[in-house]
Amino acid sequence: MNIGEFSLIEKFFAHGGEKAAIELGIGDDAAAVRVPYGHLLQISTDTAIEGVHFPRDLLPADAAYRSVMAAASDLAAMGASPIAMLLAITLPACDEAWLSRFAKGLRAASDVTGLLLVGGDTTRGSLSLTVTVLGSTPAASGLRRDGARPGDRVCVSGTLGDAAAGLAIIQGGLKTSDQATAKFLKERFTGPTARLALGESLLGVATSAIDLSDGLLADAEHVAKASAVAIEINSDKIPLSPAMRGLADSGQILQWALAGGDDYELLVTLPPDEPVPCELTEIGRVTDGLGVSCDQTPASRGYDHFA
Amino acid sequence: MNIGEFSLIEKFFAHGGEKAAIELGIGDDAAAVRVPYGHLLQISTDTAIEGVHFPRDLLPADAAYRSVMAAASDLAAMGASPIAMLLAITLPACDEAWLSRFAKGLRAASDVTGLLLVGGDTTRGSLSLTVTVLGSTPAASGLRRDGARPGDRVCVSGTLGDAAAGLAIIQGGLKTSDQATAKFLKERFTGPTARLALGESLLGVATSAIDLSDGLLADAEHVAKASAVAIEINSDKIPLSPAMRGLADSGQILQWALAGGDDYELLVTLPPDEPVPCELTEIGRVTDGLGVSCDQTPASRGYDHFA
Repeated sequence: MNIGEFSLIEKFFAHGGEKAAIELGIGDDAAAVRVPYGHLLQISTDTAIEGVHFPRDLLPADAAYRSVMAAASDLAAMGASPIAMLLAITLPACDEAWLSRFAKGLRAASDVTGLLLVGGDTTRGSLSLTVTVLGSTPAASGLRRDGARPGDRVCVSGTLGDAAAGLAIIQGGLKTSDQATAKFLKERFTGPTARLALGESLLGVATSAIDLSDGLLADAEHVAKASAVAIEINSDKIPLSPAMRGLADSGQILQWALAGGDDYELLVTLPPDEPVPCELTEIGRVTDGLGVSCDQTPASRGYDHFA
Repeated sequence: MNIGEFSLIEKFFAHGGEKAAIELGIGDDAAAVRVPYGHLLQISTDTAIEGVHFPRDLLPADAAYRSVMAAASDLAAMGASPIAMLLAITLPACDEAWLSRFAKGLRAASDVTGLLLVGGDTTRGSLSLTVTVLGSTPAASGLRRDGARPGDRVCVSGTLGDAAAGLAIIQGGLKTSDQATAKFLKERFTGPTARLALGESLLGVATSAIDLSDGLLADAEHVAKASAVAIEINSDKIPLSPAMRGLADSGQILQWALAGGDDYELLVTLPPDEPVPCELTEIGRVTDGLGVSCDQTPASRGYDHFA
């Protein structure tokens, strides 16, 4: 870690928060963190690049907020309790006004998730944010992708496709005169919520979980592959927001719901006898076989950087 | 973590290694890692950008190797035992030949350090590597920057300035007909060694430690500031390799030794009554006051991305 440079962020991230889990935060060669006795450390890293993962004119606070949430969402998908995060940021220039606004978004996301910034690195180049998140689960638990079994029900949290519709509005490809609708959908892209509490509540309940970052079909495919099962999705059952539903034709809506990424909702499988919690909607089931099937086919199945 | 994309790396990093500390490696939303009972997790993240931290024509295996070593060096500076690492890589294209060579360097560094790759993210853009390293120290130990006290001796490992001289050769600014010298110095830049065993051996012995990534004066400054002390360096005592010493005039040699970064040696302070281990050379002392002084002044004091 290069603290000389990282002090840029430190300066703009004068966070008063302290956590008993943090023995040593920003300012040394490494951060020192306590993992609760009998718990596993859960760790994940996520890169967001301007112009790829978010538009070039996104507000700095939004870029920070959604990058943290995207990374935190991986902890939610493991059922992990959040502990801390590190930020490796590449910046085109040292623009204090930009950094100040960026730090506000970072701090807001830290407050919401409980992930305290304990370290990072600052380098010069085109804008890129790599957030590493740390959490913990009781040992021998943790919501993995490989536990789905034939007979399980497939459920998702929230409503799907909103972030993709919001991004279309932000990028100008989609117009609406309904300001409330536009605001709701744009915020689903700029300010997603990692389902941390939901993930934790599903420990010992769900047989598998993944967060929806690439799109429903693409992420369901990861679970099907890891669990060596087939997943059948009923498109009629996918929860859709009224805001998104009123904006486009059914083909476009299906495209957003099945293949639009960035919602950061959870996809989980539940044993057949397990009641479906109120935060979840049942959208299909797990069967013998391999792969994901759906009664409807979108034009494209999801985002892959190197497809 | 986007596994669809990360499978690029997984494919080229078919590492047979397993560690009892790893409960769940590559392939899920997060990796699950065991931290030994009674130990603190030590964590650090480091970004290396092509054209900034390493030259554009560096071999892929060297780029991977030195990026891991640079990050691992932060663990060495804490006295931490290595556990695992995550790699967030941004690539201009999916070039299988390049990835295959890159993975070889990654694997070699993993073998040397004991850091098993447990996760990461792959995105598209100009080449950038962010390595996050995890290690552990017995609780209440860990070599911090803020423990240096007046009267302590200041010591460094290895020889300083070699990597800067090696980089000058790689970039073509420095010529030598002595192939052995050129090879040695270039390898000090492309293949540095994180001083992990030395760092661990100094737990409970050294009063402070930092790794030399920015240059001796710049890094000593971090220790002086964190410890609120002055550090006096005697330039005559700085260990220099015969290879580097034979290559340039005394001003240039001093510049490399005092301000050349990338050596990834350790700078530590030892109490006055502590014998100096054979891996270390005494180069100065800690006194009352603030800042770093040296009997010689280089033209530039070290690298700062936003200076």
